[in-house]
Amino acid sequence: MAKTTTPNQAGAARQRGVTMNDVAKHAGVSRTAVSFVLSNRENASISEETRTRINEAVQALGYRPNAGARALASQRSDWYGIVTAPFAVDIIKGAQDQAWLDRKFLLIAPSDQADAVGPNQGLEDAATEKLLEQRVEGLLYAATFHRGVHVPESAKEVPTVLINCFDADGKLPSIVPDERAGGRIAVERLLQAGHRRIGVINLDPAIPAAIGRLEGAREALADAGLELDPELVVPGYATADGGYEAACRILDRYPQEDRPTALFCLNDRMAMGAYDAIKERGLTIPGDIAVIGFDNQELIAAYLRPKLTTVALPFEKMGALGVQTLAALTAGQPIIADQQLVGCPLLERSSV
Amino acid sequence: MAKTTTPNQAGAARQRGVTMNDVAKHAGVSRTAVSFVLSNRENASISEETRTRINEAVQALGYRPNAGARALASQRSDWYGIVTAPFAVDIIKGAQDQAWLDRKFLLIAPSDQADAVGPNQGLEDAATEKLLEQRVEGLLYAATFHRGVHVPESAKEVPTVLINCFDADGKLPSIVPDERAGGRIAVERLLQAGHRRIGVINLDPAIPAAIGRLEGAREALADAGLELDPELVVPGYATADGGYEAACRILDRYPQEDRPTALFCLNDRMAMGAYDAIKERGLTIPGDIAVIGFDNQELIAAYLRPKLTTVALPFEKMGALGVQTLAALTAGQPIIADQQLVGCPLLERSSV
Repeated sequence: MAKTTTPNQAGAARQRGVTMNDVAKHAGVSRTAVSFVLSNRENASISEETRTRINEAVQALGYRPNAGARALASQRSDWYGIVTAPFAVDIIKGAQDQAWLDRKFLLIAPSDQADAVGPNQGLEDAATEKLLEQRVEGLLYAATFHRGVHVPESAKEVPTVLINCFDADGKLPSIVPDERAGGRIAVERLLQAGHRRIGVINLDPAIPAAIGRLEGAREALADAGLELDPELVVPGYATADGGYEAACRILDRYPQEDRPTALFCLNDRMAMGAYDAIKERGLTIPGDIAVIGFDNQELIAAYLRPKLTTVALPFEKMGALGVQTLAALTAGQPIIADQQLVGCPLLERSSV
Repeated sequence: MAKTTTPNQAGAARQRGVTMNDVAKHAGVSRTAVSFVLSNRENASISEETRTRINEAVQALGYRPNAGARALASQRSDWYGIVTAPFAVDIIKGAQDQAWLDRKFLLIAPSDQADAVGPNQGLEDAATEKLLEQRVEGLLYAATFHRGVHVPESAKEVPTVLINCFDADGKLPSIVPDERAGGRIAVERLLQAGHRRIGVINLDPAIPAAIGRLEGAREALADAGLELDPELVVPGYATADGGYEAACRILDRYPQEDRPTALFCLNDRMAMGAYDAIKERGLTIPGDIAVIGFDNQELIAAYLRPKLTTVALPFEKMGALGVQTLAALTAGQPIIADQQLVGCPLLERSSV
């Protein structure tokens, strides 16, 4: 019969590291029987009474299975590695939550270098190497803004998925936002509200976000029989100050009757600056000028006055999808597509 | 002599899992010799020539040490577990960067439950249990706002440190922001700029942040021979709307000559709302009303117009200090104090 143990004894035993042998001895059964019962293996002809005795011994001794030993035995670590620089918060959150649901752990290799995923190969190499030493089953690379990257050669030893970035060499699968559809939905919303003369505060025109969003804007206008007036597209530096200056330029350039009645700001930070430019001119939002943003940075979009209607970047969803795709790859299953585009939903607030 | 292997062969070999035995065979030496050389053990009488041959075999075969096996052998996993809910971004970033410097990994147990660190014991228990199964060397608990928490009993099996929260039972060490010193520095800055009538937009008065910051404000005023006028302390709901409404109340309550000339907003989000209230009344910042915030939420503080002078919450530093403290505890070293207070630095921008 199993001896009784007080909770404190069980705690102390745990700290010393109770083994499967201890459980077997305590229950008066073989180690093999304990192993069979704990792994829930079927077809093992072990009596209900023995099972009960083993489970009681596990409780009494505070035995806890060693996930590391189990991983070594099964040759599966249950860990994915993620290389991220800078720390791609919402992607990591989405990936982490999905990994947790799948009973997987993410090992995160961070870096202070803004370009560690990108041209600075040395850092990535070290991060990737350390993750591979931990025998991760697969690798994720996450970028804070949508762009092409080069991943270290060693990443190709295990299944690898890129999130919010894509393989510049075109070999690895990636999950990226559907920028074009997002740009389209933003301008469609402005057209639906009756705007025909729409100003665009652009980002660096060479980055995928600017290319895609502007293309989507052009398509939406074309569907309405309109053209994007190149004069109404002003370049902006991607900050509140950049948006403020661009909005001042576009608002002051025209007499009132020719002024655009709506601004599509290619990110929320620039929309924040545009708000100040509009208000300083005694104009109201959305009465005189409607504003629509992009990114859905909650702290800005939900807190501006009026609250900003914007298009959301699906960071958490991309993170979750990255983990799901990696799970499929590590299980040897086919994946849907080399590049998965994730939709950017419109968030209605009060600025259109 | 070591055979030559092309890089591609080395890559393929890695995928099959090159073992220490393979290295020994390739180099024509014993497995023990390989183990001695790879673990850099001293006093092992192995010739320089043999060392070179082993290192060449490691390169040629693409052998990579198995961190998991090494951990099992040394009884040290090199992993810390962190339980966080909701996802405490900047704390995790600070902890992650420090862990990486120490060659440790963080295993993060997230949760969608806002109160999973706190009254919802069930979730924490499951998260803690899974981390202990991974044989983490120690545990961190991170909260998104400063408060008392109860940690699961099982956390006491390994060294445990609380970050931005403290053990309501007073048993575990914690790292928290020095709210009082932060409140003091904010009001000292306003006093230094010549303000004598200072309005305070408060948070929920029962939370540690409000208690500490208000106490610090009182001390700074007392040092200047002033008292905090209870009428000038208005409760606010911790959002931009909350700050807007509180600022409207305080600004409209007094004739111009009695109106406070400065507002201490106990968080940046409320300061954002206060800006709108001030500007709507045709008043300027800081000309008519100076504003100082708390938290240093970059997206708000660095992007408001004028940019917000505020006091920073040292999230990353607390995360790093949590890992350092845990490292000391797991190494059996004494720690500085049961509760470490981390300073909240003033960030000068343009609103005072």
